[in-house]
Amino acid sequence: MKHTRIKELLDSNEFGKEFIVKGWVKTFRNNQFLAINDGSCLSNLQIVIGINEFEDQQVKKLHTGAAIAVKGILTESQGKGQRVELKATCLEILGESDPDKFPLQPKKHSLEFLREIAHLRFRTTTFNAIFKVRNALAFAVHQFFNERGFVYIHTPIITGSDAEGAGEMFQVTTLDLDQPARNDKGEIDYKEDFFGKQTNLTVSGQLEGELAAMALGNIYTFGPTFRAENSNTTRHLAEFWMIEPEMAFYDNNDNMDLAEELLKYVIKYALETCPDEIEFLKNRQAEEDKKKPQNERAAMNLTEKLEFCLLNDFERISYTEAIEILKRSKPNQKKQFKYLIDGWGVDLQSEHERYLVEKHFKKPVILSDYPADIKAFYMRQNEVDEQGRKTVAAMDILFPGIGEIVGGSQREERYDVLTKRMDEMNIPQHEMDWFLDTRRFGTAPHAGFGLGFERLVLFVTGMTNIRDVIPFPRFPKSAEF
Amino acid sequence: MKHTRIKELLDSNEFGKEFIVKGWVKTFRNNQFLAINDGSCLSNLQIVIGINEFEDQQVKKLHTGAAIAVKGILTESQGKGQRVELKATCLEILGESDPDKFPLQPKKHSLEFLREIAHLRFRTTTFNAIFKVRNALAFAVHQFFNERGFVYIHTPIITGSDAEGAGEMFQVTTLDLDQPARNDKGEIDYKEDFFGKQTNLTVSGQLEGELAAMALGNIYTFGPTFRAENSNTTRHLAEFWMIEPEMAFYDNNDNMDLAEELLKYVIKYALETCPDEIEFLKNRQAEEDKKKPQNERAAMNLTEKLEFCLLNDFERISYTEAIEILKRSKPNQKKQFKYLIDGWGVDLQSEHERYLVEKHFKKPVILSDYPADIKAFYMRQNEVDEQGRKTVAAMDILFPGIGEIVGGSQREERYDVLTKRMDEMNIPQHEMDWFLDTRRFGTAPHAGFGLGFERLVLFVTGMTNIRDVIPFPRFPKSAEF
Repeated sequence: MKHTRIKELLDSNEFGKEFIVKGWVKTFRNNQFLAINDGSCLSNLQIVIGINEFEDQQVKKLHTGAAIAVKGILTESQGKGQRVELKATCLEILGESDPDKFPLQPKKHSLEFLREIAHLRFRTTTFNAIFKVRNALAFAVHQFFNERGFVYIHTPIITGSDAEGAGEMFQVTTLDLDQPARNDKGEIDYKEDFFGKQTNLTVSGQLEGELAAMALGNIYTFGPTFRAENSNTTRHLAEFWMIEPEMAFYDNNDNMDLAEELLKYVIKYALETCPDEIEFLKNRQAEEDKKKPQNERAAMNLTEKLEFCLLNDFERISYTEAIEILKRSKPNQKKQFKYLIDGWGVDLQSEHERYLVEKHFKKPVILSDYPADIKAFYMRQNEVDEQGRKTVAAMDILFPGIGEIVGGSQREERYDVLTKRMDEMNIPQHEMDWFLDTRRFGTAPHAGFGLGFERLVLFVTGMTNIRDVIPFPRFPKSAEF
Repeated sequence: MKHTRIKELLDSNEFGKEFIVKGWVKTFRNNQFLAINDGSCLSNLQIVIGINEFEDQQVKKLHTGAAIAVKGILTESQGKGQRVELKATCLEILGESDPDKFPLQPKKHSLEFLREIAHLRFRTTTFNAIFKVRNALAFAVHQFFNERGFVYIHTPIITGSDAEGAGEMFQVTTLDLDQPARNDKGEIDYKEDFFGKQTNLTVSGQLEGELAAMALGNIYTFGPTFRAENSNTTRHLAEFWMIEPEMAFYDNNDNMDLAEELLKYVIKYALETCPDEIEFLKNRQAEEDKKKPQNERAAMNLTEKLEFCLLNDFERISYTEAIEILKRSKPNQKKQFKYLIDGWGVDLQSEHERYLVEKHFKKPVILSDYPADIKAFYMRQNEVDEQGRKTVAAMDILFPGIGEIVGGSQREERYDVLTKRMDEMNIPQHEMDWFLDTRRFGTAPHAGFGLGFERLVLFVTGMTNIRDVIPFPRFPKSAEF
């Protein structure tokens, strides 16, 4: 007889029928009421253990964390809090859990403590909910692009190019660090390394994604990317997952349309498929908020915040317009911003982005057409404006609480303009010959963007530390498990 | 006016309506018939260019590979080979393609040549088909697990553990290779490295996957894995993608059921959603086969081979039974095997696996219960048999042409048995304490398997070199693009 998953059983009406369930003990009350969970849903199944029906030796082992198999009869529950329960007829302890040693007791543990036992935190309700939402969002991403005929492309993780300059990179090598091969000049001899040259972990799949888009039309990547930056913050990881769609024949407006559609699609999918998880996380956040001073509390609860993004058309304004709004804004006039806005050309800080979204427009904002000098070489240059300002067809999407969640642009497809820009920025053309081939042969307007997956999960779960939304976070001085 | 993708237009019946299409020129015949492709499907759209209706200068630029935008009227085609065509009313060259320089001319190029221009090979029909099938298989994997309530887990790419010993690893470091930090003893000082210890690229997400399964029940991974092995073959990559499901409360039979179901599901999905691509690849393979001597040709064409896997129940036999069959087999008796089978305990070679599948059973085969000595430490030990032979509850799925496509096992959940085995194999327990915690607290039977994604794509596309089924292959001395 096969076992039935608890999620199925909780929805079942087959009262009087016998089932086997397997799972882990969450609590055991009054030597009679056992709550078990098998990971299939957030809710536990209540199992009723008839008094004196089982051997004492077995009952004594029903500690939190123990794995058990139970055969029993499904019945309507008389108690509060559950519709069904299982009257146990047969009980087997699969794996014990010594209550003096098992770190997860039925009480509230701090997130800091749980991070240290990331291999066990999956067993808490909070992390069960987080990783279910993460799973739903990942699937929604694939489904969104699949429905629209996009091709999922696996861009390389190990790369020999470091031209994008998006950040510090990790080196990948099979050389003996103690005694690396050296050439005649005494330099490290990368010809002897595995790939015959120096290689790194990728910081972005965009450039390779463009190669595919200039043939397959619409593509997306969804893979790990890396930054070797010494940032010990709640917002940065050394290893994180990115979604990077790239579309031939799209301009920057098409790009914004797609990004807005994607964000709404995946948030809606999470709300629809994880109602219990999001309800739990909403309540969790509300409780956390109570501990904070009034002015630090979230303006919206989790579901309100998610619906805020679903129900509003994202406001689209140019960087130049945003600077005007920010200059005239109260916090700028009253010098409440940490970084005061006094002119065109500066990069926006999180406080400015949040002001635009949360105070000024009260809806998600898409900022476009940033100064060329603060953006990457591959972004398409706009016509110089009347004031002689150089901008690029970039676009960033700003969300409440979190600031930038998407960054993208139309790409510079004009060979001459692109190579001139590369020269200005000291990017060696000969190393990027393969990339330039897309501009040499059948070049065409195209655009794309990047969505940091953990940022998205952070937003949808209402968590505040990015280390809590990826199973095993990597950050400076930590690569545990 | 937005452009319409060619796939849509080829299915349209809106004759007489005006459309815009954008794509790349494949061929231009008689200064009149233009075939263009935008990556949305394998088929090209025929565009009719009225003679003398367009400027000579434009028409002269309609070379293979040029990107163009065309406005025109959809009409029923009078010619053979297509149902619809577009009568051009307006023509714009977006990006030229110099026929003296563009490497992809409308003729057959060798796969070897195309591997050297992997950034452009997406533009060939063959690679368009391959990457569409790859995309379909990836989506099918996610959909299969999503429908069954599995949780997609992103296991870490950078890992501090090298306990599995599945192969040579790549080191990940931010130390200066030329002058790495050293400690008092003159040894490399990994405390100064980014993660404060030596780290590598993962060879498998299984161990971390087990941690998640022992809480969330059923999980799967789908991510990149790495081997720094100096294997310059058509079957090995240094960077490849793996799917690794892990299921709590599954025994090895449940494991086989799931793996068989998964393989059939994804193959069926590819056949249903990529009929044109698979037809094209079938014909391609048939043409390749014609060049080979009779005895090297495939016994089945591509669709026959795929249906062979769909329609047959996979044969399930033990390693011990397989050895008996192989010992008595003709090629063994006639000494035609390169590696003769003369006793129990040896590992099977590809020739043996293929004999079992293609000659003996004529169906996919699941081999189980391998000798413990040739398998990994984490596989569950069976009862010692009457001959005193030690086996483990492993299972490998063997496919025609390709040999092993899936490898898995029930996991050793018994703490004492596992730690004893680790000691025997010199695997340091203290480095694996987190892994052993799953056996200390609420341990339970569980099982899982690994499916090499590129092996699967190789099988379903009928290609013969694994470097042709991943966009940018990484192998010894090569990390291009």
